[in-house]
Amino acid sequence: MDDKESTIKKFQKELNSGIASLVLLGVMANSTEPLYGYQIARQIGAGQKEGLSMKQGALYPVLRSLENSALLQSHVEPSISAPPRRYYQITPAGKAAYQEWKKVWEQTRDYVDATLKGTQP
Amino acid sequence: MDDKESTIKKFQKELNSGIASLVLLGVMANSTEPLYGYQIARQIGAGQKEGLSMKQGALYPVLRSLENSALLQSHVEPSISAPPRRYYQITPAGKAAYQEWKKVWEQTRDYVDATLKGTQP
Repeated sequence: MDDKESTIKKFQKELNSGIASLVLLGVMANSTEPLYGYQIARQIGAGQKEGLSMKQGALYPVLRSLENSALLQSHVEPSISAPPRRYYQITPAGKAAYQEWKKVWEQTRDYVDATLKGTQP
Repeated sequence: MDDKESTIKKFQKELNSGIASLVLLGVMANSTEPLYGYQIARQIGAGQKEGLSMKQGALYPVLRSLENSALLQSHVEPSISAPPRRYYQITPAGKAAYQEWKKVWEQTRDYVDATLKGTQP
């Protein structure tokens, strides 16, 4: 990996770590039913070129962190054909947080776009 | 600080740390002359409600990190009326990185917006 590629990757990684929580919370807020890891990964397009460049394994720490903040809750369901699956679901506090985060995201997005255009006051 | 406020602040902080490098590089790319810390802080609206919520002191680690990656260069100029000032300027490598980062930003922004709207494939 050359230097140029590594600064891009570093930037992408930093940018993604900020938005990973937002995107996950958004996916959960838009879902009408509990989802388990693989379903969530598919929703965010993990590993796809167009999606968030986030490996599926990187999802779990974010899910746990959102659960520790009581924005998500989870339960484990046994499965006959597969290992037990942990299903995640947004909490009322998570829905409220999502609305606030969305505002922060929109403000930040508009601010970044204005600054990059050089139209910042 | 209650829990709700603290999750918003945490989210804002994570989001900002990802975009701080991009915004700083953008300000430097759009500037025709070297700028010192206070001028850069004014450009990004540090401390203002509308701007990036980034205290002026938080700028310097980002500037140093961009310089360590050879995306910015700096020199110190003595001043009669004030302490010496360190002026920053974008390098050719910085200009190239900025173009790439801008693309990454635009893709990520569009991806986040699509996901939050629930229009993600």
